[in-house]
Amino acid sequence: MSLAKPFLSDNAAPVHPKLWEAMRAADHPDNPYDGDALSQELDARFTALFGRECAALWVATGTAANCLALATMCAPHGGVVCHEEAHIEVDEGGAPGFFLHGAKLMLAGGEGAKLTPDGIAALIDPIRDDVHQVQPHAIAITQASEYGRTYRPDELAMLGAFAKQRRLGLHMDGARFGNAAAFLGGSADQAARAASGPVDSLAFGFIKNGGMGAEAVVLFDPEAARQVRYRRKRAGHLQCKGRYLAAQILAMLEDDLWLANAAHANAAAQEVAAGCGDRLLHPVEANELFVRLSPAERDVLRAQDFAFYDWGADSARFVTAWNTRPEDAQALGKAIAAL
Amino acid sequence: MSLAKPFLSDNAAPVHPKLWEAMRAADHPDNPYDGDALSQELDARFTALFGRECAALWVATGTAANCLALATMCAPHGGVVCHEEAHIEVDEGGAPGFFLHGAKLMLAGGEGAKLTPDGIAALIDPIRDDVHQVQPHAIAITQASEYGRTYRPDELAMLGAFAKQRRLGLHMDGARFGNAAAFLGGSADQAARAASGPVDSLAFGFIKNGGMGAEAVVLFDPEAARQVRYRRKRAGHLQCKGRYLAAQILAMLEDDLWLANAAHANAAAQEVAAGCGDRLLHPVEANELFVRLSPAERDVLRAQDFAFYDWGADSARFVTAWNTRPEDAQALGKAIAAL
Amino acid sequence: MSLAKPFLSDNAAPVHPKLWEAMRAADHPDNPYDGDALSQELDARFTALFGRECAALWVATGTAANCLALATMCAPHGGVVCHEEAHIEVDEGGAPGFFLHGAKLMLAGGEGAKLTPDGIAALIDPIRDDVHQVQPHAIAITQASEYGRTYRPDELAMLGAFAKQRRLGLHMDGARFGNAAAFLGGSADQAARAASGPVDSLAFGFIKNGGMGAEAVVLFDPEAARQVRYRRKRAGHLQCKGRYLAAQILAMLEDDLWLANAAHANAAAQEVAAGCGDRLLHPVEANELFVRLSPAERDVLRAQDFAFYDWGADSARFVTAWNTRPEDAQALGKAIAAL
Amino acid sequence: MSLAKPFLSDNAAPVHPKLWEAMRAADHPDNPYDGDALSQELDARFTALFGRECAALWVATGTAANCLALATMCAPHGGVVCHEEAHIEVDEGGAPGFFLHGAKLMLAGGEGAKLTPDGIAALIDPIRDDVHQVQPHAIAITQASEYGRTYRPDELAMLGAFAKQRRLGLHMDGARFGNAAAFLGGSADQAARAASGPVDSLAFGFIKNGGMGAEAVVLFDPEAARQVRYRRKRAGHLQCKGRYLAAQILAMLEDDLWLANAAHANAAAQEVAAGCGDRLLHPVEANELFVRLSPAERDVLRAQDFAFYDWGADSARFVTAWNTRPEDAQALGKAIAAL
Repeated sequence: MSLAKPFLSDNAAPVHPKLWEAMRAADHPDNPYDGDALSQELDARFTALFGRECAALWVATGTAANCLALATMCAPHGGVVCHEEAHIEVDEGGAPGFFLHGAKLMLAGGEGAKLTPDGIAALIDPIRDDVHQVQPHAIAITQASEYGRTYRPDELAMLGAFAKQRRLGLHMDGARFGNAAAFLGGSADQAARAASGPVDSLAFGFIKNGGMGAEAVVLFDPEAARQVRYRRKRAGHLQCKGRYLAAQILAMLEDDLWLANAAHANAAAQEVAAGCGDRLLHPVEANELFVRLSPAERDVLRAQDFAFYDWGADSARFVTAWNTRPEDAQALGKAIAAL
Repeated sequence: MSLAKPFLSDNAAPVHPKLWEAMRAADHPDNPYDGDALSQELDARFTALFGRECAALWVATGTAANCLALATMCAPHGGVVCHEEAHIEVDEGGAPGFFLHGAKLMLAGGEGAKLTPDGIAALIDPIRDDVHQVQPHAIAITQASEYGRTYRPDELAMLGAFAKQRRLGLHMDGARFGNAAAFLGGSADQAARAASGPVDSLAFGFIKNGGMGAEAVVLFDPEAARQVRYRRKRAGHLQCKGRYLAAQILAMLEDDLWLANAAHANAAAQEVAAGCGDRLLHPVEANELFVRLSPAERDVLRAQDFAFYDWGADSARFVTAWNTRPEDAQALGKAIAAL
Repeated sequence: MSLAKPFLSDNAAPVHPKLWEAMRAADHPDNPYDGDALSQELDARFTALFGRECAALWVATGTAANCLALATMCAPHGGVVCHEEAHIEVDEGGAPGFFLHGAKLMLAGGEGAKLTPDGIAALIDPIRDDVHQVQPHAIAITQASEYGRTYRPDELAMLGAFAKQRRLGLHMDGARFGNAAAFLGGSADQAARAASGPVDSLAFGFIKNGGMGAEAVVLFDPEAARQVRYRRKRAGHLQCKGRYLAAQILAMLEDDLWLANAAHANAAAQEVAAGCGDRLLHPVEANELFVRLSPAERDVLRAQDFAFYDWGADSARFVTAWNTRPEDAQALGKAIAAL
Repeated sequence: MSLAKPFLSDNAAPVHPKLWEAMRAADHPDNPYDGDALSQELDARFTALFGRECAALWVATGTAANCLALATMCAPHGGVVCHEEAHIEVDEGGAPGFFLHGAKLMLAGGEGAKLTPDGIAALIDPIRDDVHQVQPHAIAITQASEYGRTYRPDELAMLGAFAKQRRLGLHMDGARFGNAAAFLGGSADQAARAASGPVDSLAFGFIKNGGMGAEAVVLFDPEAARQVRYRRKRAGHLQCKGRYLAAQILAMLEDDLWLANAAHANAAAQEVAAGCGDRLLHPVEANELFVRLSPAERDVLRAQDFAFYDWGADSARFVTAWNTRPEDAQALGKAIAAL
């Protein structure tokens, strides 16, 4: 597959130069696991970022980050409410069933792969509180969503209130958290707080945003954090040279590189969107575009060296990244407009 | 803790320059997960190395490598025989219980943390084949062992025959496989074959030997390999930028860097051993030394900037690495001799 | 709740007198667990019944019977296709997630809670064979279905062929297997074979059919049977006085009591059905009736001492049992007709 | 095997007549599962018995009772300290690994299969509180122990204080709880309280004491009880005709039948013990005897129609039951004395 003008996925992008620098700077002997100086900084750095006390632990994948967090809020006999197109349901190879020891994903609908209190209530209200039916223990949302949609602060606040009222945990899959935060804009400070909102835990994604192999599990409850430390090891996710993961994350936080990278990708997505008109299946609120395109139209684009995935029979998905060249994005927008 | 003359652990060492080069060379867009060109090379490279058909999958830790492999040979209701001081029993935070869904570790004794057919038979022969008792399904050995001892080819052959006769799987934890292979010496070709011997699977460790965050699960049974591909994803161990892991491993295999690094560490260990005399608790057959030292003696060494772990009340563990300076090793040997 | 004219559920019925006799006849010292004379008879008795080699193990519940069988055909990383209203999905408190170590239930539609090859294909054909998506390993059907519908021999044959072609296991939840077999009629011999058809395993229900606390897991594959023996113990389902469970099952098989009881319940259901006309939501092919009834109409029936469950807002479920008095069934049919 | 004079096991004994009566009295339609009148009585009856608030749930086996209780106090990443000869370690087919999702049994020594605070401390004090090592979460003791030894009230008090201080749960496997309570003597009221002492949960065994298939999980913490209700269903242990289990248990509590039965068995054991002299390997404090007997001596006894299990090469185990005929016990005692 041609990778000349790549809109396949942000996870195919290379690693940001600042992260290479940071990793090389960490390339000296230090204590193993998370006993090194860099790993030890994480809690404080994320606490500052979010303006509330939290713990942050590196892991190598978003799948692990999501599942380790969810395991703190859903017992094996409980259920996690998520969108029927949520990544944890559709694309993680059954990982929640593994990490949560057989707990059930409970699937709700919702426009743009976003959950709403009403949609969740419609799913869980009919569940009788008897032992024959799995009871919901937690909610998982994705920010930005699987269709590149972003929860607004008031939507998060309502979900938070709902979760609290129903005594459900609230987890955020932030594989593209940076893109959501950038979209919510304003200051980095506010954007991050708005995007994490009232959640109990966050899988803060860096890999799709210029990282190599480090995401952060952010836990706002100290007891959950303690538990995840044990569970991370038990899941084989405590790398012995953790300083290279911490280095990546700290470099991302430095001068808000994570937001700059995400803003770059978002801007490129808007360039593409400008050419899509009513072909867009979803408003573009992050760095993904879902575009109605016939097979023939897709062939035309591919003949121009644009690389992307089909999305069902009649559309395609384009993803921009921290390194997308603006000229490629403009070219793609124009090429689509010209179809 | 002073890291001036570090003999704490090989997992505290930095990353080998060749691996940095290889990772940088991989720093361009490619297919995600293990669809990239480098990851696709692994099976063939390890097949050539071992001279028998195998599959090789990268994962970030030895814990994951061991447990993913063991899960292919031990059902949840079965047991894995390992040494009572095996890393999987003592130091992996219960990971086998997680990955094997509650299967049991069955603990055998054995000199130098090595298992023997007789030792295993003494453990499992009294187990009645009835449903009240957990039945053994597999054996796990460590090469080099937790006390830095190396199984010889004939010992491996006997274990393999025993396992086959009892219809048990045989897995090798090779966190320090390179050190064992180097110790068994001769050509790289023969050393690797001798060290992996008749096993069904091998967790081939690179991280302690100069890597950053990539080990290989090597599976000699295609059905097991197929299963591990699914289970790796399910365990959150399928990294989306897998090319950086593949790059490390391929760089290690290139010109037998893995053997050269291990031989360097082994030689340093012998330098230290030369000063230890009858203080040695175990013959030095890899890169670890267990040395009888009183607290006062350890203080003396630490005052000379040697860093190492206590090992119980009356001894210490020293570990050499790919980057141990020969002069440091000699100095340590002399310092111990001078006590 | 009045239990005067009970149509609540067949699991609320008492125990058949013949089973009491059989249990009392077993009330003398014998070997514990399944080492007693009666338990040892089961394999042969079921082999004779089904006309093909099988093993039969008692357990106390249908939930355990289903899950123990399914665990032999679906790995923890796989999925079991079942109807979206299947009992294992809706009413077993997440038991499949527990027994199958986090495997996924994959929900297909189908009229009358019955699966068809086409319906299953529509669900699983879009699943890419890649590790991000859970792969189907098995199919579970319910005979009679959750809506009291019965798979015909040709339907079972097609499902069996489909399962074989796709290399999927095929399990039958036979909580009301007797009712299905009786409906399929003719000789007991043929009815049982037709009802179990080409399945790999069957949870043969006796409790709803006059039993106290014994169902049979019937396994047509010896390796699966061996595995279930271990897993039954591990799940705490190996009762030490198993002879009382075996006695119940053998009494049920004696002179085809299981078929007679089921035929009685089916006949009672037909008596009720005769009064329901087009109120019936599903054809009555076993001992359950789903009847369109307004809340006011249900009140009228309850005022006449009929006991039953509401089924959603506008209908009710009636279940007949081995002990339903014909006059009660006729009275219920007439009372509904009179509404 | 001759069952003429059976001392094989109390689980081979038949069912007490009072329990048959009670089951037959329950043989009428009632609400399914534990919604029937009898099941609803259990909490109050056990609260009265123990003089402190508790919940009591029936299950069919001691294995299930133990494991359901332990799962409330030990997370999947934790460990349960038990004796190295504890039934849950040796004889339950790995059930704790299943119900506790891979948690680890941590084995302590102790005379007579009894744990002591010192013995537990010796095991767990060396465990570093770091994530590489499984941390203890709970303690499980057996009353009477696997060698028929009984914890005295002061021993239980010390274990309770120790557990509390270390923040560990304390569970009691009471497969032969009645025998221990009877041995501790005095009033039923005091005996039961003394025997359950300060535990968080108790698997109260009835089956070995004249029951058919019902044990009680007794939980002194309401949150644990709520959890077990869900987990019992999930484990396939919620029988739909639960009234027959409740009936057995209530009959056992009626007029302290459980204590009378146990006292009978204990008395028979003392009759046997009287003939054993210094052949006894353990003091007889319940209804089990472990007796040094050569193979030839065992042959002599078996030739006299005594049935029992060998216990290793040089001894035998004899178990008395609620129905052991005093003349058989005396005869056995005399036969041993005459050897």
